[in-house]
Amino acid sequence: MSTTINFGIIGAGRIGKIHAENLASRIPGATVLAIADPNIEAARELATRLHVPSAVAEADALFDDPAINAIAICSSTDTHARFIIEAAQAGKHIFCEKPIAYDLAQIDAALAAVAKAGVSLQIGFNRRFDPNFRALRQAVVSGQIGAPQILRITSRDPAPPPIEYVKVSGGMFFDMTIHDFDMARYLLGSDVEEVCVMGGVLVDPAIGEAGDVDTAVIMLRFANGALGVIDNSRKAVYGYDQRAEVFGSGGMVASANNTSFNACLSNAEGVHGPKPLYFFLERYAESFVAEMRDFVACLHNGAPTPVSGLDGRAPVLMAMAATRSLHKGRPVKLSEISEG
Amino acid sequence: MSTTINFGIIGAGRIGKIHAENLASRIPGATVLAIADPNIEAARELATRLHVPSAVAEADALFDDPAINAIAICSSTDTHARFIIEAAQAGKHIFCEKPIAYDLAQIDAALAAVAKAGVSLQIGFNRRFDPNFRALRQAVVSGQIGAPQILRITSRDPAPPPIEYVKVSGGMFFDMTIHDFDMARYLLGSDVEEVCVMGGVLVDPAIGEAGDVDTAVIMLRFANGALGVIDNSRKAVYGYDQRAEVFGSGGMVASANNTSFNACLSNAEGVHGPKPLYFFLERYAESFVAEMRDFVACLHNGAPTPVSGLDGRAPVLMAMAATRSLHKGRPVKLSEISEG
Amino acid sequence: MSTTINFGIIGAGRIGKIHAENLASRIPGATVLAIADPNIEAARELATRLHVPSAVAEADALFDDPAINAIAICSSTDTHARFIIEAAQAGKHIFCEKPIAYDLAQIDAALAAVAKAGVSLQIGFNRRFDPNFRALRQAVVSGQIGAPQILRITSRDPAPPPIEYVKVSGGMFFDMTIHDFDMARYLLGSDVEEVCVMGGVLVDPAIGEAGDVDTAVIMLRFANGALGVIDNSRKAVYGYDQRAEVFGSGGMVASANNTSFNACLSNAEGVHGPKPLYFFLERYAESFVAEMRDFVACLHNGAPTPVSGLDGRAPVLMAMAATRSLHKGRPVKLSEISEG
Amino acid sequence: MSTTINFGIIGAGRIGKIHAENLASRIPGATVLAIADPNIEAARELATRLHVPSAVAEADALFDDPAINAIAICSSTDTHARFIIEAAQAGKHIFCEKPIAYDLAQIDAALAAVAKAGVSLQIGFNRRFDPNFRALRQAVVSGQIGAPQILRITSRDPAPPPIEYVKVSGGMFFDMTIHDFDMARYLLGSDVEEVCVMGGVLVDPAIGEAGDVDTAVIMLRFANGALGVIDNSRKAVYGYDQRAEVFGSGGMVASANNTSFNACLSNAEGVHGPKPLYFFLERYAESFVAEMRDFVACLHNGAPTPVSGLDGRAPVLMAMAATRSLHKGRPVKLSEISEG
Repeated sequence: MSTTINFGIIGAGRIGKIHAENLASRIPGATVLAIADPNIEAARELATRLHVPSAVAEADALFDDPAINAIAICSSTDTHARFIIEAAQAGKHIFCEKPIAYDLAQIDAALAAVAKAGVSLQIGFNRRFDPNFRALRQAVVSGQIGAPQILRITSRDPAPPPIEYVKVSGGMFFDMTIHDFDMARYLLGSDVEEVCVMGGVLVDPAIGEAGDVDTAVIMLRFANGALGVIDNSRKAVYGYDQRAEVFGSGGMVASANNTSFNACLSNAEGVHGPKPLYFFLERYAESFVAEMRDFVACLHNGAPTPVSGLDGRAPVLMAMAATRSLHKGRPVKLSEISEG
Repeated sequence: MSTTINFGIIGAGRIGKIHAENLASRIPGATVLAIADPNIEAARELATRLHVPSAVAEADALFDDPAINAIAICSSTDTHARFIIEAAQAGKHIFCEKPIAYDLAQIDAALAAVAKAGVSLQIGFNRRFDPNFRALRQAVVSGQIGAPQILRITSRDPAPPPIEYVKVSGGMFFDMTIHDFDMARYLLGSDVEEVCVMGGVLVDPAIGEAGDVDTAVIMLRFANGALGVIDNSRKAVYGYDQRAEVFGSGGMVASANNTSFNACLSNAEGVHGPKPLYFFLERYAESFVAEMRDFVACLHNGAPTPVSGLDGRAPVLMAMAATRSLHKGRPVKLSEISEG
Repeated sequence: MSTTINFGIIGAGRIGKIHAENLASRIPGATVLAIADPNIEAARELATRLHVPSAVAEADALFDDPAINAIAICSSTDTHARFIIEAAQAGKHIFCEKPIAYDLAQIDAALAAVAKAGVSLQIGFNRRFDPNFRALRQAVVSGQIGAPQILRITSRDPAPPPIEYVKVSGGMFFDMTIHDFDMARYLLGSDVEEVCVMGGVLVDPAIGEAGDVDTAVIMLRFANGALGVIDNSRKAVYGYDQRAEVFGSGGMVASANNTSFNACLSNAEGVHGPKPLYFFLERYAESFVAEMRDFVACLHNGAPTPVSGLDGRAPVLMAMAATRSLHKGRPVKLSEISEG
Repeated sequence: MSTTINFGIIGAGRIGKIHAENLASRIPGATVLAIADPNIEAARELATRLHVPSAVAEADALFDDPAINAIAICSSTDTHARFIIEAAQAGKHIFCEKPIAYDLAQIDAALAAVAKAGVSLQIGFNRRFDPNFRALRQAVVSGQIGAPQILRITSRDPAPPPIEYVKVSGGMFFDMTIHDFDMARYLLGSDVEEVCVMGGVLVDPAIGEAGDVDTAVIMLRFANGALGVIDNSRKAVYGYDQRAEVFGSGGMVASANNTSFNACLSNAEGVHGPKPLYFFLERYAESFVAEMRDFVACLHNGAPTPVSGLDGRAPVLMAMAATRSLHKGRPVKLSEISEG
C-alpha cells in the first residue's frame, strides 16, 4: 500500500463535506482523489475548494479507479448497502455512514460481501470518538466502576428535522436513537437482548401525523444483566443535550454537555452559564476527525476497525425492536426480530 | 384550639425519635405530651431526654387523652391503617409515616375514617420538603420549563437493608421506590397511568433469594401525556444518590446531590470533590423538620395538609403495578390494579 | 465542674440572640442561667423565650453569680476587653466575640488577666468552624497540597452596613476583613509578617466621606514564606461571596459559595443556578453552633480552646497594619506595629 | 490587494510552526510564501511539510519579496523590534509575537516606524482570543456586571522553563506575567496606573539564584479606579491554571479552566474529574488560529487590528514597574517608569 490512503468520497452533502474536508486537510496519511455525487455541481464545487483532482456524477468511476484504496460512503441511507457491496467487490476499503440499511437482509448481504472481499469496513458511529464518551468507556474498561449495572443516556436534539425527512427517515429510532443504541453497546461492551419503549407526540402533532413519535423513553436489558434507559426528545430549547452515565458495583461515571465557553455570570437573579453547543456539527466536530483518523490508521497498520459491520448491524436490530415495542405496547426481545 | 398543638407520638424507633426531637425543640407551636411504644423502655428514655411528660406502652392512652390534639404515627407499617382509624375516631389530627399500608382495602378504610371524622391527615413523604426538589416543583409550577414532557429520577441507596427487612418490607418498590413514585407525582402534578419495569438482582443474590430485586429501571406514563423514568439501586458505593430532572417544552430543571462541604482538591491526578451525603438521615434531616412544621402550621390555620391521604394511596398503587409489571414482564396500567 | 456548663450571656442583640438560642437548645452540656443587657427589655424578652431563669441590666450580676461557669461576651466591641478582665477575675471561662479591642494595650491587658486567672478563653472567629473552610484547613494539615505557597481569599458582603456603623466600626479592615485575616492565619497555620493594601471608594461616596474604603485588595506575606491575597467589597449584588483557595507544591484546594438549593434551569438563554446565601446569618448559621459546641466540649474535657486569645490579637494587628498601609501607600510589616 | 494575503514567516521554532501551520491550512484568505530561519534546515523542513514554496536563512529575503504582503515575526524577542522596523520600511503588514522588546526606546522606535509606514501591526497576545476570556470581556462591555471594581487573574504554569531560559527571559514578569498584564488591560478596557508586587522563590532555588522569582502576587490600580490582583506560580502540579474574574457594581463574571473531557467518576473516595489542560499549546491552540484569522480579516477589510502596538507597549511598561516594585519593596506608578 502506498504511504497515503487514496479516498473516493460518495456524496457531497452535509456529511460528505465534513469527511472530505477532514480527509483533505486534517487526517495524516490520507488523500482525496475523487468525489462523486449525482448533483455534479456540488461535487465539482467541493472538489475545487479542496484541491481534489476529480469530481464525477457516478460512484462507479470511483470503484473502477485503481488508484483509489478506500471509499467513504456519505450518500443517502437507501444506497449504503449497494455501495458497500460494489466497493467491496472492487476491493476497496469502506467507511460507511450509519445506518447501513433499514433492512436486515440488505445489511447481511453487504456484510457478506465485505467478508468475502476481505476489505476493511468502518461504520460512522462518530460519537464513540468523542472525548467525553471515550472517558466513560475507559472508566468501564479499566474497572473503575466495577461491574456495570445501570446505563443512562439522555439524547435530545435542539429542533426536529423537517417533516419531509421524518416521513422517510424510518422513524426517530432509526435516524436519531440509533446513535444512542450504538452508544449503549459501546459503553457497556455488551449486546442488548430486550428493549421496551414508551413514546409520545409531545413536540409537534405533525410528527404524529407522519406516523412517528417525537419523545420517548426506552428501557434496555443487556446480555450481561445490566439495565439501561435512554430518553429522547426531538426538541430541547436549550440546545443539544448529550449525556451518559454508567453506574456499577464500584462507582459511577457520568459526562455532561459541552459548551463553547465556561464563563459564568453572577448577578442579582442568580448564576448564569452558557447553553450546551447547539447541535451535532458543533458538538461532535472533532469526533468526525477522530473516527476518520482511526480508520486511516487501521488501514495503514492492518488493524481491525473500531466500529465493525456487526457494530453497524446491531443498532438497526435495536431500532426494529424499539419500533415493534412502541407499536405493540410491550417489551420486545431482539431474538424475536432477528429470527423474523 | 390552644396556642400549641399537643402531640402524642406512636413509636420510639428511628423515625419516631426524629419526629419527637423536632417537635420538642424545632417546631414552633407544637408540644409533645406523650410517647407510646410497646418497648416501654425506649419510650421512657426518649420522653426523659426530651422532657416529654408521659411515656406509655399502649397507643390507646394517647387516643383517650383529651389534651392531645394530634398523633404522629411512627410505628411499623402493618399498624398504620389501624392507628389512623383509631386516631380519627378519637378526633385527633394525624401525621402518618409512609406507606399507609400494603393493601388498598386497608388504605381505603383508613381514608374513609379520616374523611368521616373530618380530621387532618398528612403522609410522611418528606422529600417533597427538600429544598432541591421544592425548587424543581416550583420551576414546573411557575411555567419556567413549559409543559413537562420527560421526568428522570435517580434514586440509589448507599447500602441494602438487612435481608430480614427485605423479606418483610413488601419489596423494593414498597419500601424504597415508593418515595420516587410520590416524587414523580409531586414534580409533575399529574397522576401516573401506566408503569413498566425491568429489574434484576445485581447487588446481592440473597435479595433475589428473598424474592426481591435490588436494581430496577421503571418507565412511567403520566395522565398528562408526559413520560418518566426512575432508576434504582440498593447499593451506590459513593453514597446516597438522589437526583431528579424535569424536561419540558420550555426548558429543563435538574437537581444534583448534596455534600457536607464543597472544597475541591486539584492535584496531579485530577480534581477531587466530596461524595454525596451518606443516607437519608443526613440528606433529608431538614426535610423532616420542614414537613412537620408545615403540618403544624396547617393545623393552626386550618389549611389542607400538603400531602393528603390520596397522595399516600397513589404511590402504593404504583408499587403494586410495578410489582405486577416485574412479574408479568409487561407494562401495567394502574386502572388494572385499582379495578382489582 | 457540674455536668453542664452554666452560661451567663452579656448582650441580647443580634449575635447575643444567636449564641443564647444555640446554647439553650442545640449545645449538649450547656445551660443558660442569665442574660445581661442594659436594654433590660431585650434581655427579658430573650430570657423568657428561651426559658432562661434570669435577665439583668448589669453584667456584674453574672460575674457575682457562683452558679455561672462561663460568660459569653456579645456586647459592643468597646466593652469586650473590660468584660474579659472582669470575667477572668471572677474565675469564669470566657467566649468573646471578635475583635477583642481596637487597641493593643487593651488586648494585652485582657489576655494578661486571662492568663493570670487560668481561665479558658475562646474568640468568636466562627468561620473556622464552617465545613468548607475546615476541609481546606484539613487538606493543608494532611499535606494534600504540599507546602502552601499562595492563599487567595475572596470576601464580599451583599450590602454595606449603615453609615453610622461605618463611622464607629474602626473601618472595614476591623469590622469585615478581620475575619479574613483570621482565616488567612487559620488556613496556612502561619503568622503574617507584612501586609500591603490598595483600597478605594467604589460602592458609596458616603463611606469615603466617613473616612473609610469600601473596596480593597490586600497582599500578605507569611512567616513561612507563602504569599496571600484578600479581596473585599462591601457590596456584591449576587449575595455573600465567601471563597478561599490554598495553592501549594502538591496541589490546590478551593471552596465555593453555598446556596440554599442546587437546582439548575436550562432554557433558551442559558443555564441558571441559585445565588450564594444572602449573608452571614444564613451562610454561617451552623458555624455559630459548632464554635460554641467546641468551646463547651473544651471546658468539659479541659482541652485548650481552638481559637485562643493570641488568635484574637493577631488579626487586630493585621488590621492595624492594613490601615497604615492604606494611609501610607506602602507595605507595612507587622513588627512595625507591634513595636509601636 | 490580492484575494489572499501572502505571508512570510520569520522563525521556524515552536511558535513559528504554529502560525505557519494555521496560516497554511486553517486561515481563509492567507497563504504562506516563505519561511526564514537562521537554522535553514528547520525552515526547509517546515516549508516542505506545509507546501510553502520558499525557505531561506535570512529574513531580508522576505522584506525584499514584492509578492509578500505580511510578515509574521516569530523569532527571538531580541530581534522583534528590528524586524518590525525593517518590515515596516518594506511596506509589509506585521504580526509580531510578544513582547515587542524589553526596552522602551526600542519599542517606541518600532512603533514609530510602523506609524510612518502606515502598515498594520498586531501583537500576539493570543489569550484575548480565547472563548472564555472573550466572554468575560463581552460581559464587561455589555454592562452585565456594571462598573468593574475588582479584577482577579490566576495564572500558573505547569512547570518552570529551563533555567537557561530564566536567565535570559527578562524575568517572570516579562515572559509569563506579561500575558496577564495584557489580560488585565483587555478585560477592564482601562490602563493600569500603579502596580505593587510581593514575590518569592518557592518552587526552585535555582530560579532565585538566577535572579528571578517563581511565585508572585501583584496588585494593580487601574486608571478607572478599579483594583486588581494577579497571582502567578511557575509550577502548578495539576496543570495550567488560567482563570479570571471581573467583579463590578452589577455582578461578577468568572471563567474556569478547560479540560480535555468532562467525565466525572464517583466512587467510595469522592467525585473525581479531569485536570486542566496541560499547558498553553493545548489550552490556547484555538486562540492562535483565531488571532491570525482576525489579523488576516483586518488586512482584508482595512480595519484596525485588535491588538495594537500600544497594546504591545503597555504590558512591557507594567512588567518594568512590577520588576521595580519587587526590587524596591514598594508600589510603583507606571508614570515613574515612562518618565524614566
